[in-house]
Amino acid sequence: MKFGLDIGATSAKLGLVDDDGKILTRSRIMIKDYPDIDSFVVKVSELALEMLDGRAVQDVEGIGVGCPNGNYYTGCVENAVNLPWKGTIELSKMMGERMGMKCAITNDANAAALGEMKYGAARGMKNFIELTLGTGVGGGVVVNGELVYGSDGFAGELGHIIVEPNGRMCGCGRKGCLEAYCSATGVARSYEELCPQEKVTSKDVFERAMAGDEIAKKVFSYTGEMLGKAIANLIAVTAPEAVILFGGLTAAGDLLMEPVRQSVETNVLRIWSGGKVRILTSGLKSDDAAILGAAAIV
Amino acid sequence: MKFGLDIGATSAKLGLVDDDGKILTRSRIMIKDYPDIDSFVVKVSELALEMLDGRAVQDVEGIGVGCPNGNYYTGCVENAVNLPWKGTIELSKMMGERMGMKCAITNDANAAALGEMKYGAARGMKNFIELTLGTGVGGGVVVNGELVYGSDGFAGELGHIIVEPNGRMCGCGRKGCLEAYCSATGVARSYEELCPQEKVTSKDVFERAMAGDEIAKKVFSYTGEMLGKAIANLIAVTAPEAVILFGGLTAAGDLLMEPVRQSVETNVLRIWSGGKVRILTSGLKSDDAAILGAAAIV
Repeated sequence: MKFGLDIGATSAKLGLVDDDGKILTRSRIMIKDYPDIDSFVVKVSELALEMLDGRAVQDVEGIGVGCPNGNYYTGCVENAVNLPWKGTIELSKMMGERMGMKCAITNDANAAALGEMKYGAARGMKNFIELTLGTGVGGGVVVNGELVYGSDGFAGELGHIIVEPNGRMCGCGRKGCLEAYCSATGVARSYEELCPQEKVTSKDVFERAMAGDEIAKKVFSYTGEMLGKAIANLIAVTAPEAVILFGGLTAAGDLLMEPVRQSVETNVLRIWSGGKVRILTSGLKSDDAAILGAAAIV
Repeated sequence: MKFGLDIGATSAKLGLVDDDGKILTRSRIMIKDYPDIDSFVVKVSELALEMLDGRAVQDVEGIGVGCPNGNYYTGCVENAVNLPWKGTIELSKMMGERMGMKCAITNDANAAALGEMKYGAARGMKNFIELTLGTGVGGGVVVNGELVYGSDGFAGELGHIIVEPNGRMCGCGRKGCLEAYCSATGVARSYEELCPQEKVTSKDVFERAMAGDEIAKKVFSYTGEMLGKAIANLIAVTAPEAVILFGGLTAAGDLLMEPVRQSVETNVLRIWSGGKVRILTSGLKSDDAAILGAAAIV
């Protein structure tokens, strides 16, 4: 058994995973309720004990953590712009000591990619890119069957590729990042730019689009177009066999996927046109992938 | 002994390389003199015989070829936009049969990256990106000490990352590619955009900049700025320890490197700022790197 902990900008999901990759039990807490990291670590530890529910703690091999800016090499969370915990947090050390078990950490999107490769749409693939479209945008790059960590453990920060020079302000302090356009927040911003009097969520935009709202439909076309441009550039770097989209935004289905595929086709270098690189949605339930991926790294 | 053949958009360079990586003898022919591939293969084969100069052909292990759009997996050159030979060319097969020896092929920029890793500025590095700045722009991506070929052998087409949406027309038929700005041709175009009455080469622009011409200096700043933006995005994908610039344009030295480094610093995600990722020029003589890299793949 292992624990897998998926930390996102909004919530953290803890699962107890058996050796066959089945999630035995799971739990969820809201990030905003834990503005300091100590209270978060204490809460996760308490939850874990509850979830064991009589199972022996010595049967648990450890806890794997997927977290924005989580660094596999150092075990730290460093300057995560979408989390309340600032600076460098020694999360792996804190969590391991508190829970009395091994702890390993990686980027939440990397964890999703590992989960996708082991249990999802990327089974059997050696070269693919996972893009997580949630409150933020993250990425996991797999080359020759291995996750790319890079020289410092931070590879795959695909949400912070600049897609629009001098474009929208991003949470990272720069302008024009993919995340400012193709996250849930980005979708809401796109709608609000066209209707400045409104305050919406990406879910509102989705529902309006499904109800036939032309502006909402335009927003999804635009989101797909921007995402397709970024994907076209990424294809030129690692030539993956597929790019897999994961996370909340993919619930929009063809409303998002159609313009993405069209935009990739328009923008990709000719040698990859004709649908040569498949653009897929995740083969895993949102909650499962990141938990399973996180568990897999320990 | 091995032959290494470096095919660029302008010329092809053949070298006979000994087991210690020393180039024993070399030769160069112009691409434009061989508009059909058969005549090119015959000429290379003749040159190789001359260069052996009495050495036994059975002591040659084979010939490695670095060529735009050269595919390591298939041995073919496929739709290379900067070469006169159109469609899919079975270069590895043709060359191997004609010369009676093993032949392996890869992208010319990949070959340069292999040469850099074995003999140049990337010695000892496990994660770096090589950018070749010549008539065109090419790339070689190294992750965990291995060249990234991707699912189809075409990874690292970094000259065709779109850096300016709806920007300059590129030879590939799309708009705004890095190559349209940061190649030798791109530098000349930048100058001619500012002085439409002039017809220049990148060398002219360099000489004018060194002589104090403000427009020429501005062109190098602009080139460096565009290149730095592309590099900042690439760093977010593979988190390399260094990005190494190679090829004709790097002869401009600080005129190019200063604005590149400044632009990377301005545009890179905060976790890589402060010069964390080194921006270097190649540690190899232009002619050597690609020949040695090409020889290394056979």
